[in-house]
Amino acid sequence: MTVLILTCEQDVTADMVVAQLHRRGVPLVRFDPADLPGEGALSAEYVRGEFRGYLSTGGRVVSMDGLRSIWVRRPGEPAAHAAEPSEWLTAESGQALYGVLECTGARWMNERDAAAKARLKPWQLRLAHHSGFPVPATVVTTYPRVARQFAEQYRHVVVKAVSGKPPGEPPMALPTTLVPPDTDFSDVAAGPTLLQRYIAKRADIRLTAVGDRLFAARKPAEPGQVDGRYGDTGHTWEPVEVQPRVERSVALYRKLAGLAYGAFDFAEDSEGTWWFLECNQGGQFGFIELETGQPIADAVAEWLGAPGECA
Amino acid sequence: MTVLILTCEQDVTADMVVAQLHRRGVPLVRFDPADLPGEGALSAEYVRGEFRGYLSTGGRVVSMDGLRSIWVRRPGEPAAHAAEPSEWLTAESGQALYGVLECTGARWMNERDAAAKARLKPWQLRLAHHSGFPVPATVVTTYPRVARQFAEQYRHVVVKAVSGKPPGEPPMALPTTLVPPDTDFSDVAAGPTLLQRYIAKRADIRLTAVGDRLFAARKPAEPGQVDGRYGDTGHTWEPVEVQPRVERSVALYRKLAGLAYGAFDFAEDSEGTWWFLECNQGGQFGFIELETGQPIADAVAEWLGAPGECA
Repeated sequence: MTVLILTCEQDVTADMVVAQLHRRGVPLVRFDPADLPGEGALSAEYVRGEFRGYLSTGGRVVSMDGLRSIWVRRPGEPAAHAAEPSEWLTAESGQALYGVLECTGARWMNERDAAAKARLKPWQLRLAHHSGFPVPATVVTTYPRVARQFAEQYRHVVVKAVSGKPPGEPPMALPTTLVPPDTDFSDVAAGPTLLQRYIAKRADIRLTAVGDRLFAARKPAEPGQVDGRYGDTGHTWEPVEVQPRVERSVALYRKLAGLAYGAFDFAEDSEGTWWFLECNQGGQFGFIELETGQPIADAVAEWLGAPGECA
Repeated sequence: MTVLILTCEQDVTADMVVAQLHRRGVPLVRFDPADLPGEGALSAEYVRGEFRGYLSTGGRVVSMDGLRSIWVRRPGEPAAHAAEPSEWLTAESGQALYGVLECTGARWMNERDAAAKARLKPWQLRLAHHSGFPVPATVVTTYPRVARQFAEQYRHVVVKAVSGKPPGEPPMALPTTLVPPDTDFSDVAAGPTLLQRYIAKRADIRLTAVGDRLFAARKPAEPGQVDGRYGDTGHTWEPVEVQPRVERSVALYRKLAGLAYGAFDFAEDSEGTWWFLECNQGGQFGFIELETGQPIADAVAEWLGAPGECA
């Protein structure tokens, strides 16, 4: 039984997991949807309700009914490397590839429909609340007046991108930014804006959930520092223990969202409470593993290589 | 409690349902995501785990917690009508709108994640089989050799678009086409191709499922006619009874796919068997209602206007 990794060619994080799968003796195939059609090929025949067929890339062939699990890492856009790329060919190739893969009995990290919904930030906040996490007050609005009132009410607020990261290659980096109370909010009318009460934090927390294995890391914050993902603070990520209450909330969030994998960001306040900021269903873990030594890539390999059903 | 209809300005099918909602005295708002930001506006504030807020368009305002149901008809691309449209603004506006709408308790026709998966044609065939429908043998392939063998084995095969319809405005019409056995299949390598055994049919069947209300229509086919959706055959759509076995399969398919609405296409063979061809989760029904007089728009209005939980 083989693990299928859907990712582009340059992917150091995938390399880390591939090394662990090799170490564990689990067969795998890397496939970039951008290579279909072309370097990648696909054939599936429908016989009495089941698709039987294979994927092939770089001379390697994997049987559809021999797929153990599918890791959706950083797949390229289908048909992007085709001789004559077009929107139509991308749609056809994507539907064929994912339509056939959905017919296999393989376990997904993550299920594609769950992943799409889990990217919706307003929905994340609601889910986080229902999972028992404390969540800072938040507004999403196109009304300058509403934005101004929110900023006046909470005094310290941050503005964030709603959709996570801008499209485009390379993507623009958009750190979370503190908004002064006397800001001119008239531009809010030009696009939905997400404002959130600023949590005065003493540390950033990144918790990586791989199935039911949790890896939490903590990085102390300088007073007034807003977004720990950018800039050098002189601190490094260190492993930190997960409280049972947080553990239960993470399990519930994963269950409600239908996610096998999630990278949670929290702000730790002066009382030690972890405030939910977001859960990125496709979040990176390489930088955490490198700094903390936590065996996250191996946990991913273990999940992908497991024989039975789980999530 | 209000019905929210997400659709573009020119939508005759939506007009039919709007008329029925008016007749039933059910309040509704039409909203085109293309108008956000601009003519359309949105504001939602997160308070203790719930988003409370409103959508506004053309001077009308609808409260988020007053939404009864959401009909995803033909929504425009978010921010398409913005003063300065961009991919980034489209992503931000779509995430804000759908992220907030997913936080409401409203019933969806159809749920967005279910709809996305239900568009995958290979997956449809598998689901149809598991729901008890007879399904013609099918292959999806980028291998000319496999396509040729399939055509030789079944002799009468048709080729179809995998992704349903090509992108672009207006969309290209791509009828299902009969493939002569001596076809040169070398172009199959240029893009995944779906071939299906041709069902010698005496009629086309269109079955529209609105919740658990089914409307089946039948149009006799000329000998050798392949795609009843295109061209004038001199026949019209007439209502036809649904056999209990088909009724059970439709119910199971809807349940497995998580769909409130689906437009099923069948080919009726000389024995009267209905072969599953596809289920379009967003399929048109206006032309069927006009020819048969079946009250489909009213059934949609009834589903959208219903007070309780159902699917």
